[in-house]
Amino acid sequence: DDPLVIGNISFRSRLWIGTGKYPSFEMTRKVILESGADVVTVAVRRVNILRKDEPNLLDYLPPSEFKILPNTAGCYTVEEALRYARLARESGISPLVKLEVIGDPKTLYPDVTGLVEAARILVSEGSIVFPYTSDDPVIAKKLVDVGCVAVMPLAAPIGSGLGIRNPASLRIIMETVSVPVIVDAGVGCASDAAIAMEMGVDGILMNTAVAEAKNPLLMARAMKNAVSAGRDSFLAGRMPRRLYASASSPLDGMLGS
Amino acid sequence: DDPLVIGNISFRSRLWIGTGKYPSFEMTRKVILESGADVVTVAVRRVNILRKDEPNLLDYLPPSEFKILPNTAGCYTVEEALRYARLARESGISPLVKLEVIGDPKTLYPDVTGLVEAARILVSEGSIVFPYTSDDPVIAKKLVDVGCVAVMPLAAPIGSGLGIRNPASLRIIMETVSVPVIVDAGVGCASDAAIAMEMGVDGILMNTAVAEAKNPLLMARAMKNAVSAGRDSFLAGRMPRRLYASASSPLDGMLGS
Amino acid sequence: DDPLVIGNISFRSRLWIGTGKYPSFEMTRKVILESGADVVTVAVRRVNILRKDEPNLLDYLPPSEFKILPNTAGCYTVEEALRYARLARESGISPLVKLEVIGDPKTLYPDVTGLVEAARILVSEGSIVFPYTSDDPVIAKKLVDVGCVAVMPLAAPIGSGLGIRNPASLRIIMETVSVPVIVDAGVGCASDAAIAMEMGVDGILMNTAVAEAKNPLLMARAMKNAVSAGRDSFLAGRMPRRLYASASSPLDGMLGS
Amino acid sequence: DDPLVIGNISFRSRLWIGTGKYPSFEMTRKVILESGADVVTVAVRRVNILRKDEPNLLDYLPPSEFKILPNTAGCYTVEEALRYARLARESGISPLVKLEVIGDPKTLYPDVTGLVEAARILVSEGSIVFPYTSDDPVIAKKLVDVGCVAVMPLAAPIGSGLGIRNPASLRIIMETVSVPVIVDAGVGCASDAAIAMEMGVDGILMNTAVAEAKNPLLMARAMKNAVSAGRDSFLAGRMPRRLYASASSPLDGMLGS
Repeated sequence: DDPLVIGNISFRSRLWIGTGKYPSFEMTRKVILESGADVVTVAVRRVNILRKDEPNLLDYLPPSEFKILPNTAGCYTVEEALRYARLARESGISPLVKLEVIGDPKTLYPDVTGLVEAARILVSEGSIVFPYTSDDPVIAKKLVDVGCVAVMPLAAPIGSGLGIRNPASLRIIMETVSVPVIVDAGVGCASDAAIAMEMGVDGILMNTAVAEAKNPLLMARAMKNAVSAGRDSFLAGRMPRRLYASASSPLDGMLGS
Repeated sequence: DDPLVIGNISFRSRLWIGTGKYPSFEMTRKVILESGADVVTVAVRRVNILRKDEPNLLDYLPPSEFKILPNTAGCYTVEEALRYARLARESGISPLVKLEVIGDPKTLYPDVTGLVEAARILVSEGSIVFPYTSDDPVIAKKLVDVGCVAVMPLAAPIGSGLGIRNPASLRIIMETVSVPVIVDAGVGCASDAAIAMEMGVDGILMNTAVAEAKNPLLMARAMKNAVSAGRDSFLAGRMPRRLYASASSPLDGMLGS
Repeated sequence: DDPLVIGNISFRSRLWIGTGKYPSFEMTRKVILESGADVVTVAVRRVNILRKDEPNLLDYLPPSEFKILPNTAGCYTVEEALRYARLARESGISPLVKLEVIGDPKTLYPDVTGLVEAARILVSEGSIVFPYTSDDPVIAKKLVDVGCVAVMPLAAPIGSGLGIRNPASLRIIMETVSVPVIVDAGVGCASDAAIAMEMGVDGILMNTAVAEAKNPLLMARAMKNAVSAGRDSFLAGRMPRRLYASASSPLDGMLGS
Repeated sequence: DDPLVIGNISFRSRLWIGTGKYPSFEMTRKVILESGADVVTVAVRRVNILRKDEPNLLDYLPPSEFKILPNTAGCYTVEEALRYARLARESGISPLVKLEVIGDPKTLYPDVTGLVEAARILVSEGSIVFPYTSDDPVIAKKLVDVGCVAVMPLAAPIGSGLGIRNPASLRIIMETVSVPVIVDAGVGCASDAAIAMEMGVDGILMNTAVAEAKNPLLMARAMKNAVSAGRDSFLAGRMPRRLYASASSPLDGMLGS
């Protein structure tokens, strides 16, 4: 048994799922059930989880069944991010927040300067902050220093599907901080998820890779198994790489590069 | 439902497992059960499956439970390969044979010239031949032309754990032959298996990646899920790759290279 | 003819060279001459270019022959960086400064928050600032917004020799800013330099790859030619990638990944 | 000084150039001069080098100035390859032949079985044989055993521009044979050439990468410098790869893969 524990919260699955880009709340629910995820992230600015007089995503993904992780997607300033994070917290839905302070509408890359500032404020107010950040280890350290319980570096730009662009940076982040590292953004297919988990990251959050697959339900199942396979492979301890079975010395980094 | 069918044989799993390098037949059985494999390959020259008066692997992996795929590992000439392939066939254990004609004791790379010749003779004798070959599409075509029911190109040298060294070659083989393509040799960890399956190969045979993992049982489970995840991901149809979500054009091959 | 021009300064070479890790000032000079570089960067905190009563690097690399680019390596705070940048500027050696605000003594990764702040101040004082930064495009934009004449993103950690870890990020930076992009840190061998230049970056600064080669003089020549080859290859416009010559469609990003 | 010597022939350049796909013999000559190549390969079946009553490529690339390497491109059987190889040899133009026995019109992949047979016959007749082969080390060994003076493995399919698809195979070939290894086919840009040379191959033959560049003359210069840079970088001995400068242990193969 190998649960992910962050703070005093225990997670059933290391796969976290976003709710954007689905044609209906019913479909969103079906896909998330298939993925086995218990953490579901929702853009407070875009998807209704606060008003009871409109179709509400939480009717389909109730907090009794799932851990709702409100996020501040679409917020471009510290003030905006604080506003929506507070709205979600004060609604009583969850003390958790995936904090996004977006720096660029084209790439949706984070504004790490604003991110650290907003995180500090939200932590001081009692939020449990999961920051969407770049793969910069110095920023990761600052986020932990201001009280974030985990860091969520991007593997590649949001919605790119490029996979783990910079494994070296993720490794350095894992060496640098002692909180869990959840890869957020960039995974495009099942092997990307397996690669990330095999590196030893603690979990993965994804949205587009599932929502934009030709068959999202089948991809959700693929991702569940890929995350599990990658985690087991990490824990099992892989065989050494060699140029061939009887090679006299282990391989240095020359090959795949 | 998505079974692998080769000739008139239907396979429960797309993960095929080798039996070398385990400390005991008991352990071999436990690992294979964990992997979910129904095809088990055995080196006729090295592991007893023919004599009843010695400890016999088939007592642990009976043909009633598993599809036994005798192989000619350790055979360096056409004559040797034919001899052991015939021994296995005439014993009645299986009409299948994984044909290996090894060209080099250091790398265990196949001798493709001898391979095509031995395959032609065994097919004419009624064997169902699965050839261990290089990733050369012209040789793959010759193997099919002489009657092989599948081709089993290496992903990397036997026992290397280097993963899919040349996806371009595997893709060309899949374009070139219409029989199933089973990747044989080179997989080192779960993500390697997922990557291969995601490319669309029909199955994977592996041994060292499981047997030499620090925890073979856990790696066996990882591989089962990775093969399943990779297959599902292939069938589900991945999202397109883009430099970022709002990029105006899809990515050409420049990035990952 | 294809000179690099930044501000009103024209550069003879797109290869910029560091001066650390050489056994003597004589050797430093020989290697730099072999590299063809006209920009030479010097750590003001570590190497004497200010005092006339000690062995002075500028006796070997006089500003009449080379463009001296003082840098603030070893500075961990905005205050330290400002202090050494001002010392260099006020000495009259050069109005240029390669600004480093280091965030972590282990990886020598930049502290991008401090970097933007220090850059703003130095620009306002009249310095011509070349900031050593991460590969974060939002930070690159901020640096340009405060007046930097170029950005110098790392290709990989200082002294790692890992090569271009994240070509996607460099491409996004090149799309995002209109000032020249000089890759700083991470190049390990000649092909790394060629790859970077072929992507279209404007220049490369390196130190360890030359200084720690077994034969620094020969590697300096290799780097000169690699930078030139990569630049020409970029300008010449490469052939398209295809799975094979007669392939019906160009390749997507699936291969190298 | 570092000349390539094969048999008793000394080569001025490690870059060998093909003559296909140019609009005129004049342009072919200009590009080859710019590349610095002294070896020029010509498809005997396609380009006139034998008849004096027609426009003859050798009027533009005379054997007094260049080493002409006739090749058997377009030959799909042993008989065809022998016929054109003999025509070239008997014409007195050169005792050298780049032997191609093509196995597949789509990918232009070699038929290695036919190749070994044709090589054996041509060597016995006195030809100096440079075989275009796959990256199979067992076939490379067979080619040397029948008397080839070098082996010319493909880096990727002819005309693909995919670069060095399988560095592991090239390394194994270099470990396996003691004759020079000339990479033939697959290079697409200058960094591909630098990467191959940096691995320690003895030379590179290319055609499409230059001929199909938007500016072939400029790409020819790029390739000359890239081959030189890669060779120097190989000889100079690169710095070790590390996760960062102060990392306690060298990197295994995990990163680039």
